[in-house]
Formats: sequence, structure tokens, C-alpha cells
Amino acid sequence: MTLDDLPELERLARALEPDPSLRARAFARTVQYAHQYLDGIADAPAYRTDPQRAAALLDHPIDEHGIGLETALALIEAQVDRPGIAPTSGRFAGYIPGGGLVHAALGDFLAAISNRYAGVFFASPGAVRIENLLLRWMADLARLPATCAGYLSAGGSGATLSAIVTARDTAGIEGEAIARAAVYVTEHAHHCVRKALRIAGLGRVQWRLIAVDAGYRMRPDALQDAIRQDRADGLQPWLLVAAAGATNTGAVDPLTALAEIAGCEQLWLHVDAAYGGFFLLTETGRQRLAGIEAADSLVMDPHKSLFLPYGTGALLVRDGEKLHQAMSEGADYMQDT
Amino acid sequence: MTLDDLPELERLARALEPDPSLRARAFARTVQYAHQYLDGIADAPAYRTDPQRAAALLDHPIDEHGIGLETALALIEAQVDRPGIAPTSGRFAGYIPGGGLVHAALGDFLAAISNRYAGVFFASPGAVRIENLLLRWMADLARLPATCAGYLSAGGSGATLSAIVTARDTAGIEGEAIARAAVYVTEHAHHCVRKALRIAGLGRVQWRLIAVDAGYRMRPDALQDAIRQDRADGLQPWLLVAAAGATNTGAVDPLTALAEIAGCEQLWLHVDAAYGGFFLLTETGRQRLAGIEAADSLVMDPHKSLFLPYGTGALLVRDGEKLHQAMSEGADYMQDT
Repeated sequence: MTLDDLPELERLARALEPDPSLRARAFARTVQYAHQYLDGIADAPAYRTDPQRAAALLDHPIDEHGIGLETALALIEAQVDRPGIAPTSGRFAGYIPGGGLVHAALGDFLAAISNRYAGVFFASPGAVRIENLLLRWMADLARLPATCAGYLSAGGSGATLSAIVTARDTAGIEGEAIARAAVYVTEHAHHCVRKALRIAGLGRVQWRLIAVDAGYRMRPDALQDAIRQDRADGLQPWLLVAAAGATNTGAVDPLTALAEIAGCEQLWLHVDAAYGGFFLLTETGRQRLAGIEAADSLVMDPHKSLFLPYGTGALLVRDGEKLHQAMSEGADYMQDT
Repeated sequence: MTLDDLPELERLARALEPDPSLRARAFARTVQYAHQYLDGIADAPAYRTDPQRAAALLDHPIDEHGIGLETALALIEAQVDRPGIAPTSGRFAGYIPGGGLVHAALGDFLAAISNRYAGVFFASPGAVRIENLLLRWMADLARLPATCAGYLSAGGSGATLSAIVTARDTAGIEGEAIARAAVYVTEHAHHCVRKALRIAGLGRVQWRLIAVDAGYRMRPDALQDAIRQDRADGLQPWLLVAAAGATNTGAVDPLTALAEIAGCEQLWLHVDAAYGGFFLLTETGRQRLAGIEAADSLVMDPHKSLFLPYGTGALLVRDGEKLHQAMSEGADYMQDT
């Protein structure tokens, strides 16, 4: 291939770009579809059964031959936007909410149009600042200090993994220490906690299910007893996972009392506020969530109670330097950034 | 709160919804902005410096008082869509490409409008089938068998982590075995491999930088020598990471020869095709990438050479059951799914 080939290659490449009028039609038709969808959501069923389980999609396997916008929209309507759970429906009453903010959809659209890379300040200072502003807003809500750092993730599970890896490396849990390290949760802890421990190579930690009170909240006295017993047995109390809105029950563990124990016993306090954290926007929520400001790490899920699109999670780590130490890697190809 | 409060609560909630005319204006104005942006990309600079580094965004911290659509679009234009790297520009010549497909932006928009949950078949059989059709298409490209399974991730790094955790659990690398396990890479391996090992609790594995040839490709003879030496030293050769398009150099390791060694030596062959994998769509690519079909795990990044929006990664694991065993967790609140 030589420079002389470039004009022909450009001609071939340009044919792949929709011209302005085709592009305008595609945008207009898609927006029309969206309006039609939104016009119907107030009374749309929250759940639709579908005996075919969207099997008609299988008649359109992915290949290099496009199916055209109208066929694509018809498939989306019948096979994607109908069967299953409609979290945007006015009748959707799941106590862990789904999304449905049209401005969020516009934001997703614009983000994909310009496709700025938010992972490196050099590549997009604006995108990085927006992420940091959002994190700062959440940190202020939870009254976390200026030292905290974090990131927007694809969901609460990934954010929880980063929290646990940071807690692991801060405490130096590795090798023989793993089987001696003790983790304190209730039976209502989200399954991503257990999964994160497994992914982080900590599947064999001591897993303590602390008793709950009548409101399904962790009992501080039972926690204290468990820690005492573990210390007596030569184990290393390490991680306390408190729920600020448990998935099963909505229960908020007594954060202030748990934080006091975590402080005295030098446990890492991880607060799982994926579901409940944004109730900090209400006065009642601030009262119920008092103590959250003591978290060493905190996970909140904007795709839950902020109604943003799936998947949008967030991690905040009180001492951002610890997150940095646990996660940073260098590379030649990053030298300009 | 009683049922009698519902009408008043509904009144308050409805005020938060844009009415159809406001919504139509927001959509139209955003689409207009997108067209204006796209009209300019053919000759837009690929990189714009900005002495202020988008600092004007700091004058608009996130709070409960909206700034209005016009202010938001003006900030996006000046502070986000200008400074830094424009991967959509016709002048962008990064050899690892950025995105810029308008139909992908429309897809993101529609996905956010209906916000179907793709994590559970019960919640959205259509969304799950689309993900699986995409994975099947990629698996066919790489000639991976019907047993393979995977997922679409937020990027190649997360997909690599899942691959390494699956490889770790399949080989039972834990405890004292970690420091005896050997990983074979070249110095050009992407930094996410090292990072995934650290996150997976494997920071202390034996890290072997295998010599490369004049084309920066891993030398099979040097790999074989290193394995032989490690076995002689009582270590456990475990993981071979081959690049199918190295980030620094674009080099494709000799996959067929490496796969043969991996098969004989019972190594897990992970192929990092994040950047290079989709060259399988070309005849030249298929020749260069011969041997990729032997991968135990394979990462490809649609947000690179398929030009899809950041972040879109994909993992494929040859034996899907191993991925399932490494990753599955149950929970009460999942019992209906």
C-alpha cells in the first residue's frame, strides 16, 4: 500500500458515513420512536410476559449486512421494549427503582456522539472534571472529607470490588493472613460482597454473619462479641460491611454504633449504600443514615435511586491515596498523559 | 403517611416530569447540537489544547438547582467537546481508533430511554439475547466453539480481570501456590494484565518477560526455555498471555506456535485481542491472527476497532462453565429470576 492508494481508500471509507440527510432522517425517526415510547409509559404494564421470550431476535443474527433502521426499531419495540420488566413504567413499584430520566438519555446520546475518553485528563479534561464534580457532590452528601477519591463505575458490584481490594491492600491481607482475616456482615449483605471477596482472592476469609435485631439491622453487641471471640482465637478482624439500605429489607444498619466499633477495633468500614445512599437528599434520610460519614469506603448506585440509566455505580474511598496505591499501574503508552 | 397522601405525592412527582412539549424541545435542541457537532468533524482538530483545562466547569458544581439545557449545551461544547482528544475527528490518526458511529449513539439513546436491565433474562429477554448474539458473532469470528460464554464489559480491563480470575480458579491458584505460579508475557503486555493479577490477589506470581523477535513478537523458543527452567525450579507454569495486536507496537504474537506450547504444557492461553481482534473481519487479519481459535479466554474491545462508544469491552471464555463456576453467586432477592 502506498500514498497513492489513499484517495481510493478515502472513497471507500466515506461511503460508510451516513450523509447529512440520511443522518438527519435516522435521528428524527429514532427521536419519534422515543417520543412514542415515552407517551405510553404512564400506564404501561410494569411487567409483560412473552411466551416467545424474544426469540424472534434469533432470526436476525449479527452479521455484516445491516437490517435497516425500520427493522431495527420494530425489533426493539416488539422484542426488547415489550417483554420483561419496564422500569420506566408509571406502574413499576419495585422498591429499588429503575431509571427513566429523558435528560439522562440525551446525555448518553451526546456522550456517544463526541465519544470523549474520560479515563485520562489529557484526553478529556472536561469529562474528567464532570466525573470528579459528581463524586465531590456525592462525597459532600455523605460528609466525606476532601481527601476522598473514587470513580464512576458500571455498577455497584464493580465499585464494591475496588473497595474491597483497597481494604485488602491497606491491611496487607495476603498469603496465610487470608484465612485468619475476618469479615463481618449480616445475612442480608448483597451477594456482590461475597463475589468481590472471591474475585479478590479472598474466598477463604472468615465470614461472620452477625445477628440482626427485629428491624433486620446488625446488632452492635453481637458484632462486638464476634470480634472479641475472633481476637481470642488468634484471628484478624479486618472488614466490616454495613448496609445503608439492605437489598432484601431496606434495613439501615446502626452506622454510628458500628463506626465506633470499627474505629476502636481498627476495622475497615465499608458502607454499602448502593440502594439507600441517595436518601441523604432528604431530611429523614440524613437522620437514618447518620454515621455514614465514618465510612472508609462507600458505594452508591446512581442507577437506582437517582433514576439514571443502567449501569451507573460510584465508589468513594475516604483516603484516596489508598485507592491510588491499590489500583495504579504505569505503562509506556501512557507516558504522554 | 397514608393512602390519602398519595394524590398529593403524585402531584409533586408529576411536576418533575417534562411535559410532552418540553420534552420535544429538549430532544430537538439536543439533536440540533449533535448535527452541528457532526457537521464539523471532518476537518476538526484531532487535539485541542486548552490553557484553562476545562476549569469553567468548576463554576457549575453539581447541586439540586438545574442549569437549564442551553447552559448545559454551551458548557458541553466549550468545556467537554473542545479540549483534548477528538476521536471522532477526520484528522484523528491514532492507530488505536476512537469511536464515532452515529447509529451507536442512537442505540445508547434508546437503551437509556427504556432502560431495560440486561443482567437477568427474566428482566429483559430481548436485551440478554442481543448481548448473546453479539458474543456469538465475535466467537464465530474467532472460531471459538459453541461451549464458549462471556459478557460485554465496560472495557478490556474488566474483561481481562474476569478472564484471569477464571484461569486462576480453574487452576486452583491460591495460598502457597500463588508464589509458585508463573505467568508468561512480553514486555509489551498491556498494563491491565498486571493490574488484573494484583486485583485477583496474584501480585506475587512469577512474572516472566519472554524475549521478543525483531517484530516485537514473543519468541516461542524463549517461552519454551522459560517454562522448562520454571519446571526445573519447582514452579507451576500457569498462564500465557499472548497479544493479538500489542498496544505499543501492534505486534501479533505467533499464536499458533504459542497455542501448541500452551496445549502441551497445560497453560491457560489468554489472548489479548482488545485492539487487534476485529481485524478478523479482513482476510489479512484472519491470516495474521491464525491460532486465535485456540484461546482459553479472549478479550476484544468493540470501542476500539469497531468504533463503538467508550466503554465497550467483551470477554469470551472457551469453556463457559469455568466462567460460570468462577463468577456465580446466588441471593434471596434473585430467587424469581
